[in-house]
Amino acid sequence: MNKNRLEAFSDGVLAIIITIMVLEIKVPHGHQWADLEKLIPVFLSYILSFIYIGIYWNNHHHMMHTVKHVSGGILWANLHLLFWLSLIPFVTGWMGENHFEKQPTALYGIVLLMAAIAYFILQKQIIKVQGKDAILAKALGTDIKGKISPALYVIGIAFSWYLPWVSGVFYIIVALMWLIPDARIERILAASEH
Amino acid sequence: MNKNRLEAFSDGVLAIIITIMVLEIKVPHGHQWADLEKLIPVFLSYILSFIYIGIYWNNHHHMMHTVKHVSGGILWANLHLLFWLSLIPFVTGWMGENHFEKQPTALYGIVLLMAAIAYFILQKQIIKVQGKDAILAKALGTDIKGKISPALYVIGIAFSWYLPWVSGVFYIIVALMWLIPDARIERILAASEH
Amino acid sequence: MNKNRLEAFSDGVLAIIITIMVLEIKVPHGHQWADLEKLIPVFLSYILSFIYIGIYWNNHHHMMHTVKHVSGGILWANLHLLFWLSLIPFVTGWMGENHFEKQPTALYGIVLLMAAIAYFILQKQIIKVQGKDAILAKALGTDIKGKISPALYVIGIAFSWYLPWVSGVFYIIVALMWLIPDARIERILAASEH
Amino acid sequence: MNKNRLEAFSDGVLAIIITIMVLEIKVPHGHQWADLEKLIPVFLSYILSFIYIGIYWNNHHHMMHTVKHVSGGILWANLHLLFWLSLIPFVTGWMGENHFEKQPTALYGIVLLMAAIAYFILQKQIIKVQGKDAILAKALGTDIKGKISPALYVIGIAFSWYLPWVSGVFYIIVALMWLIPDARIERILAASEH
Repeated sequence: MNKNRLEAFSDGVLAIIITIMVLEIKVPHGHQWADLEKLIPVFLSYILSFIYIGIYWNNHHHMMHTVKHVSGGILWANLHLLFWLSLIPFVTGWMGENHFEKQPTALYGIVLLMAAIAYFILQKQIIKVQGKDAILAKALGTDIKGKISPALYVIGIAFSWYLPWVSGVFYIIVALMWLIPDARIERILAASEH
Repeated sequence: MNKNRLEAFSDGVLAIIITIMVLEIKVPHGHQWADLEKLIPVFLSYILSFIYIGIYWNNHHHMMHTVKHVSGGILWANLHLLFWLSLIPFVTGWMGENHFEKQPTALYGIVLLMAAIAYFILQKQIIKVQGKDAILAKALGTDIKGKISPALYVIGIAFSWYLPWVSGVFYIIVALMWLIPDARIERILAASEH
Repeated sequence: MNKNRLEAFSDGVLAIIITIMVLEIKVPHGHQWADLEKLIPVFLSYILSFIYIGIYWNNHHHMMHTVKHVSGGILWANLHLLFWLSLIPFVTGWMGENHFEKQPTALYGIVLLMAAIAYFILQKQIIKVQGKDAILAKALGTDIKGKISPALYVIGIAFSWYLPWVSGVFYIIVALMWLIPDARIERILAASEH
Repeated sequence: MNKNRLEAFSDGVLAIIITIMVLEIKVPHGHQWADLEKLIPVFLSYILSFIYIGIYWNNHHHMMHTVKHVSGGILWANLHLLFWLSLIPFVTGWMGENHFEKQPTALYGIVLLMAAIAYFILQKQIIKVQGKDAILAKALGTDIKGKISPALYVIGIAFSWYLPWVSGVFYIIVALMWLIPDARIERILAASEH
């Protein structure tokens, strides 16, 4: 299995996910500004999900940069990650249309959590192929962001039963934390080239 | 006709099929967990179809790895395969929304069967170009999985008139059988490089 | 402007067109075979359009094979072609849902005609860049198929007012005529390599 | 971060945007020409948006041609641009279905304006990486078209409260102004190769 193929397919799926989400913002029948008002929560959740898919695309490629051989384990771990990300348009629509009610907000967090776990499994599969001393293992280091994120999602999900807006704040915090591109891998990669 | 072009186009179509299937999981209007309950069959059929497309994508590329020249026959056999796979979002939606009723479950199996036959035809076209001693012919060997699958689909389709859940079990068995990536071709390819 | 870029973008658009057409086959609410019956015309028009997009994809790449430099004229002629092809899912749905009534059948033919004209313009732009003695001009020769097709479309459109099923037959004839991949260009290309 | 990856992902997103817009042209239930009449405004706005996405795709690649290293700033500026462009199918549908009423026409202009600003930010990020004397800075020169466009959008948006059809004229003028491919960068690039 060729690495370029895996990247191209993942790129394709992510590009489609990020774009079809906009289909959840249904064109309203009226033409007044008021007709747009009820779309504001859908729009806000669209922005959040757009950023998340952007982050996953970005980090996915930093990570894939370190991969030379694609094993069966990497291939299916990658499809597993894409599976959870493919549910994001659905949970984005459900959360937005229900104005951040508790159940949809919890489910949104659950899908983010599952995607984070899937990403973690993919990392493990890559490191397994590369060995413990490999580039990715070094680049990740203690992988603080990777460990904190699931914890923050869990807290966010827990809050959704009482104060769903707090959940939203947690999801935003994780996004902001990752918006800073993963300089770790780039640094190590650059170093390994010298 | 360039092989990379054929792969890129097939990748694109498969990436879109796997992603637009999620549009069949319609966002419910209510925000209770109960509103999600009725989506469970749709979700289960989504998972099954996601795995099937993943398997086809995976095996398609193992097979294409052995191709050097793309004949007109290969090109149209490939489009024929993509045609049947393109119907998977439709049959997935129909089976899921009707909670695995007999007719939709039968049709799901029929489309899987037709895709398997289309895949078989594509294999034959490739072997025809390569000749009997070619890599793909060797790699396939007796092609036990390729021969058992259609038989299992047919049994599954037959069961749908009496016990549709048994059909589902058969479709899952075939998926599990293929989830193990096609090591045969990889082994022979690796050997042929020495 | 890079030729690969133009091909990749065209491939992407064609892959999406061929796949989203399936969204026009709406999942029926009932689960009886009878519920599928009313979808038969939609399904038949889907098959026809799938073959047409396949033909365009196929011939587009044979033609692009001869291109070295992408001029502004080629770029916009290509987008113009993609524009008409992008309307195929719409006219396919309209014709299928209305069981080949005269107006939708006429419009289907009109869009096919416009796509054929757009393809012709694209050819002219490429030949303009390459010069009269260039590969594409030689490969096309008298371009009989390219000249007959618009005429057949026009006859098909004319028939739609009286006997729409005859229009359908004409559209099928043109498709069959093109299903045979364009051996002309391949032959000349192969010859020019010696 | 690899430049090809960024281009492939952007190509994918733009190809999807340009194609899913056609889903906003809903297939009418009737089969008379009169049933199509009410779709004319949707169709006209589809044409305009198709041209705009074509222009962005075209100029995006002329610009990316000058890029060697993709910084984090370029990456996120690019995603920011894709975000605004991803809203075009929505505003196209809203403007078309409401027959160019003032609010939808204003919003269409606002999204075009935001996309133009996002494009400007992306340019700045690229020039920042390349330095003031770099190819892109030279190629843009005084960047008259880039400076006039936002002004024309603002005038168009302002008119939408009084005469929405004048807004449409302004949006069309900007499109026509850009339809002429950006010869500036090509010229400088060609010159820099000597």
